[in-house]
Amino acid sequence: MLSKNELKQIRQLASKKYRSKTGLFVAEGIKVVREFCDSGWNPQAVYSVNDLDFVSFTKVDQATLDQITHFSTASSVLAVFKLPEQKEYSSDEFSVALDSISDPGNLGTIIRLCDWFGIKNIICSHDTVDCFNPKVVQSTMGSIARIKCYYCDLEAFLKNHAAPVYGACLEGTSFYTQDFDAKGVLVMGSESHGISPEIKKLLSEKITIPAASDGPHAESLNVAMATAIILGEIYRP
Amino acid sequence: MLSKNELKQIRQLASKKYRSKTGLFVAEGIKVVREFCDSGWNPQAVYSVNDLDFVSFTKVDQATLDQITHFSTASSVLAVFKLPEQKEYSSDEFSVALDSISDPGNLGTIIRLCDWFGIKNIICSHDTVDCFNPKVVQSTMGSIARIKCYYCDLEAFLKNHAAPVYGACLEGTSFYTQDFDAKGVLVMGSESHGISPEIKKLLSEKITIPAASDGPHAESLNVAMATAIILGEIYRP
Repeated sequence: MLSKNELKQIRQLASKKYRSKTGLFVAEGIKVVREFCDSGWNPQAVYSVNDLDFVSFTKVDQATLDQITHFSTASSVLAVFKLPEQKEYSSDEFSVALDSISDPGNLGTIIRLCDWFGIKNIICSHDTVDCFNPKVVQSTMGSIARIKCYYCDLEAFLKNHAAPVYGACLEGTSFYTQDFDAKGVLVMGSESHGISPEIKKLLSEKITIPAASDGPHAESLNVAMATAIILGEIYRP
Repeated sequence: MLSKNELKQIRQLASKKYRSKTGLFVAEGIKVVREFCDSGWNPQAVYSVNDLDFVSFTKVDQATLDQITHFSTASSVLAVFKLPEQKEYSSDEFSVALDSISDPGNLGTIIRLCDWFGIKNIICSHDTVDCFNPKVVQSTMGSIARIKCYYCDLEAFLKNHAAPVYGACLEGTSFYTQDFDAKGVLVMGSESHGISPEIKKLLSEKITIPAASDGPHAESLNVAMATAIILGEIYRP
């Protein structure tokens, strides 16, 4: 049985402010919680309706989970984890940088994509949605347990980054003809405005996904879809 | 001013049954409504808070739109269109076939992707979510105005289809090495179970998107992302 105070604290972890204050975040659903545990994360607390064989847990009833879930429908498991320590970015592997991505589903999808292709680091502008937002955690399907997101001043970061910086724009050259440096960075811009003017100035190459040439077509692609298509090309053997 | 009956009828168009009965569907938001009009669709009614220069409309206040919207937040425009006539599929262009896609956002995204790459026809199993579901219409961002979705018995359709049938599976050969026939069909399976066993038997080629080979990675890709990556390869010049 959780106390009123505990219930309230877990619910409050829906807000970024409260996550920062407490250093905690929530993951829900058996698949996501298991991925964290399998990846070596040590939960502070796990509440489950059913018995679990991979982690110690507190048994609760569904009504309790309904009270603490961050979603309209509760899963059968909810776990509280510690936020990872924020370290300086230091990697020379290919990475993805996100400029003002605001939709949690898009960030979650991009994290899952990076996890699929083996990209371990994502650099996020300060105004990109928090990767420990419950909706982001959920839509990564657990991939967030393996991927590091670095929040920083993206402009300053790219200014100091030695490797080539590729940016997806509507007015670039075809990405099919681009050679991608194995230490490069792919910048994807916001859902509504694309890459911001300050960041555009720092791109080594503007790339674009050519649309069908005959007749009218979609004006743009969703940022997660564009990321998927470009990563598919970059990881072409 | 809309009558109580009119308000009710528009709200009821959220259900597929009522759309079939009346032969009508709803599109919301200036961008989506404009795309339909630009593509030659003739609205039965347009309700707008602001003046529109591309179509005749009935001026209403926001409170009225709040009453008829199919979303939690209303746009400033809502239009009612006639469902297109269902014709027999007859095309020898490359097409996409969907086997039991249930998420409206996934179908909407796939329609938008097809529109981007110039694919004009999508063949949908009967249990795929209806393409005139308000959430699908919305997430296509207007692309549904240009794409035809054919709902049919997918198994029977593929049995009678002469061109090669490619299916995205977790256990296929790398899609990077596949030659795609210009008259072929790409089958994408459901979010939870992939391509069903009956449909798998009818595939000419099982293809897969290779994941990173070093260490653990995401177990799967979302169906819309997988479609994006494969179409990116098929339309590689």
